[in-house]
Amino acid sequence: MNVGFMDKDIISSAQNARVKGVLALQQKAAERRKTGLFVVEGMRELQHCVEAGMAVDSLFVCPEIVGDAPEAWSLLEGVVPVRGMVEVTAGVYGKMAYRGGTEGVIAVVRGVRMGLQDLQLGEHPLLVVLEGVEKPGNVGAILRSAEAAGADAVVVCDELTDLYNPNLIRSSVGARFRVPCVACDSEECIAFLKEQGISILTAQLQDSDVYYDVDMKRGTAIVMGTEATGLTDRWRRAADAHIRIPMLGRVDSLNVSVSAAVLLFEAVRQRLNG
Amino acid sequence: MNVGFMDKDIISSAQNARVKGVLALQQKAAERRKTGLFVVEGMRELQHCVEAGMAVDSLFVCPEIVGDAPEAWSLLEGVVPVRGMVEVTAGVYGKMAYRGGTEGVIAVVRGVRMGLQDLQLGEHPLLVVLEGVEKPGNVGAILRSAEAAGADAVVVCDELTDLYNPNLIRSSVGARFRVPCVACDSEECIAFLKEQGISILTAQLQDSDVYYDVDMKRGTAIVMGTEATGLTDRWRRAADAHIRIPMLGRVDSLNVSVSAAVLLFEAVRQRLNG
Repeated sequence: MNVGFMDKDIISSAQNARVKGVLALQQKAAERRKTGLFVVEGMRELQHCVEAGMAVDSLFVCPEIVGDAPEAWSLLEGVVPVRGMVEVTAGVYGKMAYRGGTEGVIAVVRGVRMGLQDLQLGEHPLLVVLEGVEKPGNVGAILRSAEAAGADAVVVCDELTDLYNPNLIRSSVGARFRVPCVACDSEECIAFLKEQGISILTAQLQDSDVYYDVDMKRGTAIVMGTEATGLTDRWRRAADAHIRIPMLGRVDSLNVSVSAAVLLFEAVRQRLNG
Repeated sequence: MNVGFMDKDIISSAQNARVKGVLALQQKAAERRKTGLFVVEGMRELQHCVEAGMAVDSLFVCPEIVGDAPEAWSLLEGVVPVRGMVEVTAGVYGKMAYRGGTEGVIAVVRGVRMGLQDLQLGEHPLLVVLEGVEKPGNVGAILRSAEAAGADAVVVCDELTDLYNPNLIRSSVGARFRVPCVACDSEECIAFLKEQGISILTAQLQDSDVYYDVDMKRGTAIVMGTEATGLTDRWRRAADAHIRIPMLGRVDSLNVSVSAAVLLFEAVRQRLNG
């Protein structure tokens, strides 16, 4: 087993300060905000971060669990963490692992907080804006679909989940690190969209047009609220059009991430179909 | 607290045979198959079953947890379980609750196994066929979208997850009890679709047309395979057309339940849009 490149810290106690630091980052959004750091788990998430050029702060590896997998060690050798790579025992790893996974690798990574002014938008950008969406898994799933649809960015307004939540990262399957992603407040976002001439399409049932009757070829922001209460009046008033997906079953029958995908791929259809 | 209508069995031990029976049904597909029973948890799932006219076998209620909620008690009073309603202590309920939920109600319900011959299809039916999809959560999410799109049925071929899996039921948000749902083998399903003159559209990347260029107004079955390996040759050969969703990001970037929704709502668009 190739562990010669590691430094010789071997952590065997879950009371170790660095281990406790990882747990705090996994569990507490406030800790992530304060430090600007977040946690990824497993080879695939680490690889997504590395490919996206993100700075790895610390790497915690359990050689017992990683075993002899050559690709794993070759990935790990390519990472140069600012605060080094440390070895942990299987017992400590078990306490650190958020998903109870079996890959033996956890990394602390430095987040990059983007603002609206950092977005590099093309001529007819396609954005998804989420107001008050609570479930990190839904935001992650929307990021995944946004990437597939070639969207320019996802904007989370008045965020209730932070953008480095572990469930969000996991459910995005790497899209979190490839799709530009901004957190800001709704007023700021509305002002930005108006200024950029991007059409605001709010997903809502009342006073709305069927989504495929609305032009999405020009610069478009698809704006969605919570599953429970929908969008606030602020967004409804700011809208260029209100759009709805016709429901042939129960009204509550589409998940917010599924709705987002249906709307995004309608934009793709209109754009590719001429 | 209104508990007068309950019989006087109060279960305070998790070793009780009926409690163990519930755990076996939750955890083991084989047990569900053998008995024809399955488990639902919480008021909402119970209500969905009752509304769908399903026969409740047993009801386990923890009055400490249900508390004084009048709607809850009024729902419970309306249920007449074949084997009665029994009270359990909070400790026993905690061991029975699959989701660690706090609603205090678990029901054992008799399943109804539908075959293809039981489907009542309209003139231009819309079906979703899943081959080898493994994750119960994905099948449940597809059921939810299928209901929203007014699909006639969901058919699960060569099932790897049984249709009464607790995660499937939960993620369908009641659609499991409202959308006709059949498990059968692929050969049987292909023969049925051919016989009914239903067009077989297989979702696959190779040798395929973009999905919105394919007619979905006639009787249509959207056929999807696993995220990992896609459909078998059997289905590809049986297809009337192969369809793909254009991917502008990574190839692996759509979840199977999201893909199903995008395809289903294209069928809705074509059908409503004339």
